[in-house]
Amino acid sequence: MNAVTRAGLPLPRGEREARMAWSRITEPERSQAAVALIDEYGAEEAFARVAAGRAEGADRLQPRLAVLDLERDLHVLERIGARVLIPGDDEWPSGLDDLAVPPHCLWVRGPLHAGEACQRSVAVVGARSATSYGETTASDLAAGLCDRGFTVVSGAAFGIDAAAHRGALAVDGSTIAVLAGGVERPYPVAHRQLIDRIAEVGLVVSEVPPGSAPTKHRFLSRNRIIATATQGTLVVEAGLRSGSLSTANRALQHHRVLAAVPGPVTSMVSAGCHEYIRDRGAILVTDAAEAAEAVGQLGRDLAPAKRGPEKAGDDLDAAEAMVLAALPVRRPASVATLVLQTTLGDRELVACLGRLEVRRLAQRDGQGWRKATALRAGVGGGA
Amino acid sequence: MNAVTRAGLPLPRGEREARMAWSRITEPERSQAAVALIDEYGAEEAFARVAAGRAEGADRLQPRLAVLDLERDLHVLERIGARVLIPGDDEWPSGLDDLAVPPHCLWVRGPLHAGEACQRSVAVVGARSATSYGETTASDLAAGLCDRGFTVVSGAAFGIDAAAHRGALAVDGSTIAVLAGGVERPYPVAHRQLIDRIAEVGLVVSEVPPGSAPTKHRFLSRNRIIATATQGTLVVEAGLRSGSLSTANRALQHHRVLAAVPGPVTSMVSAGCHEYIRDRGAILVTDAAEAAEAVGQLGRDLAPAKRGPEKAGDDLDAAEAMVLAALPVRRPASVATLVLQTTLGDRELVACLGRLEVRRLAQRDGQGWRKATALRAGVGGGA
Repeated sequence: MNAVTRAGLPLPRGEREARMAWSRITEPERSQAAVALIDEYGAEEAFARVAAGRAEGADRLQPRLAVLDLERDLHVLERIGARVLIPGDDEWPSGLDDLAVPPHCLWVRGPLHAGEACQRSVAVVGARSATSYGETTASDLAAGLCDRGFTVVSGAAFGIDAAAHRGALAVDGSTIAVLAGGVERPYPVAHRQLIDRIAEVGLVVSEVPPGSAPTKHRFLSRNRIIATATQGTLVVEAGLRSGSLSTANRALQHHRVLAAVPGPVTSMVSAGCHEYIRDRGAILVTDAAEAAEAVGQLGRDLAPAKRGPEKAGDDLDAAEAMVLAALPVRRPASVATLVLQTTLGDRELVACLGRLEVRRLAQRDGQGWRKATALRAGVGGGA
Repeated sequence: MNAVTRAGLPLPRGEREARMAWSRITEPERSQAAVALIDEYGAEEAFARVAAGRAEGADRLQPRLAVLDLERDLHVLERIGARVLIPGDDEWPSGLDDLAVPPHCLWVRGPLHAGEACQRSVAVVGARSATSYGETTASDLAAGLCDRGFTVVSGAAFGIDAAAHRGALAVDGSTIAVLAGGVERPYPVAHRQLIDRIAEVGLVVSEVPPGSAPTKHRFLSRNRIIATATQGTLVVEAGLRSGSLSTANRALQHHRVLAAVPGPVTSMVSAGCHEYIRDRGAILVTDAAEAAEAVGQLGRDLAPAKRGPEKAGDDLDAAEAMVLAALPVRRPASVATLVLQTTLGDRELVACLGRLEVRRLAQRDGQGWRKATALRAGVGGGA
């Protein structure tokens, strides 16, 4: 590191170091100019130009350039066992390339291969002030999605996010937490254990460097990573103004699948889900099979059709069904009575009775007919 | 009444009597041949032909012809205070004309003008084994629809149907119960009071004559009346095999609006609603305003957009929002610190602070800035 910044600090060498440095001196998504420079010169040369004041807008980056300390960042990386991914890496989640202002790099902790894990992944997000219904549903869905080979990506927040991660961890599934602050800085603090566990078996990811605080702006930018690294976003519970809807909007903006879980209409934290199903084309999803179908590959992930319980007599034709319905349970009815009730002809009626008898749905009783005794609830009555 | 049937009973005179007689000797929807005859000859002449054995299929109608007693029917009508509507009557619900096999007539009890009441009407139907959530929701929706000038049509069954009628009655709304059996024969029996009350202030309707039992077949046929007399059907709760879904299918078949209320994904009686929203194009509806919008007239019945609670700083631009988020609550931050955090230029930052100060979101404190004290929850933090 021979070149130095105006403050006397060494300049980054190579694309990876340069992108680490870029992530230090810019804010997520507010670095369009930086992205344009990097596209033109490459990250290393672009950085050198800014450090030398030879680029438009370089002035406003000087305050952060002055405190840049790449040596320290490299030490921190080693200390926390993290690594840095940059575009073009095998491990780089390809979905991020859809972003107009993609992250300069990703700081990641954990054993998962980010690129592979994201290839079949779904964001499971939602309200921090979730209900127990929402949390249970999020856990179940996440577990079921993991069972189907999906990686569950979320934000480690209170409520739905944490429930989704926990559901994934509970079945030894693959899960990724994308943080708004540095990867060594669990937020919320109460989720330190959860986030550390994810870093042990999954992946903890951030586009902002170690030490960065999770500001509101960074939360919103973080959401675009969750929405685009995955093939689809599933909102489990969200109020009408929930921050998780910003992830939903990002998913829509980038043509990802958006799905939402319904809930009671009396629940304020389902109102956002209902609105997005009503008005934004979100797919209503009630279980992991449906979520997998919505987000997964055509053909591979078809949810089985839902079926109610089978009832005796399900496959009868209209006349048979009418005769069966007309048969009394106890006191047998004569053929004449049944003709009167059904308006079927004598011969058609007798033929129906015969077919019902063969199928043990009707039985003779003296001169008349009644429902077979084996037959109980589920036939006849209202509709 | 000079002409007589082969059994020696007088033949009906005029269209109305003839249609009453037709409803006696046929089963709902199983009378395509009768409808064709009536279309060709008129109800009176068609009936005479059948009575004389001079029509195809007349044979199978003989058993019921033999027990036809129009005099008794007219007496019953008078005793129970009912009347008979036929197609072409001012009071005939015009939607029924969409049916391939419409009712021959409607037997009705109650003060409502059926034709007018159905002109702005919605079917509110659902599971008999409803949850208290479903029943409360059905009542609320029915009441809200009545408040908006809709007539609530349902089937007086246990569960959702009864809750819908009760919700309508509770606000002195207009409600119609369509029964599968005779209008003088409350079914279920436990709903005698409810049905009598509907007959007092609304309307109790059936296409089958007094004395008819509510058979399974008649329930299914009844559902087509509920579905087509109205402009739309709203399913509040329905299991995957619920009979109320037959009403939903009829509504779709006849191009009526179909709407459904979501519920917990863990509730079996919401599964049918969810399926119809997912796969059949049912509109998800969470309140009466949305139901009115779905079923009502374009323009007249627009539901207000749902809004979450207002938050301070909602209308800030991106830079202002970022500065606001960066401002500490207690210990003031210097402009230099804020520049570092936001990566805004000095001048832009100071301009933002000025605008935030004017709006009482930011305040000076010594040499620095912090959030205005009036500002509490709702700004900053996660997303």
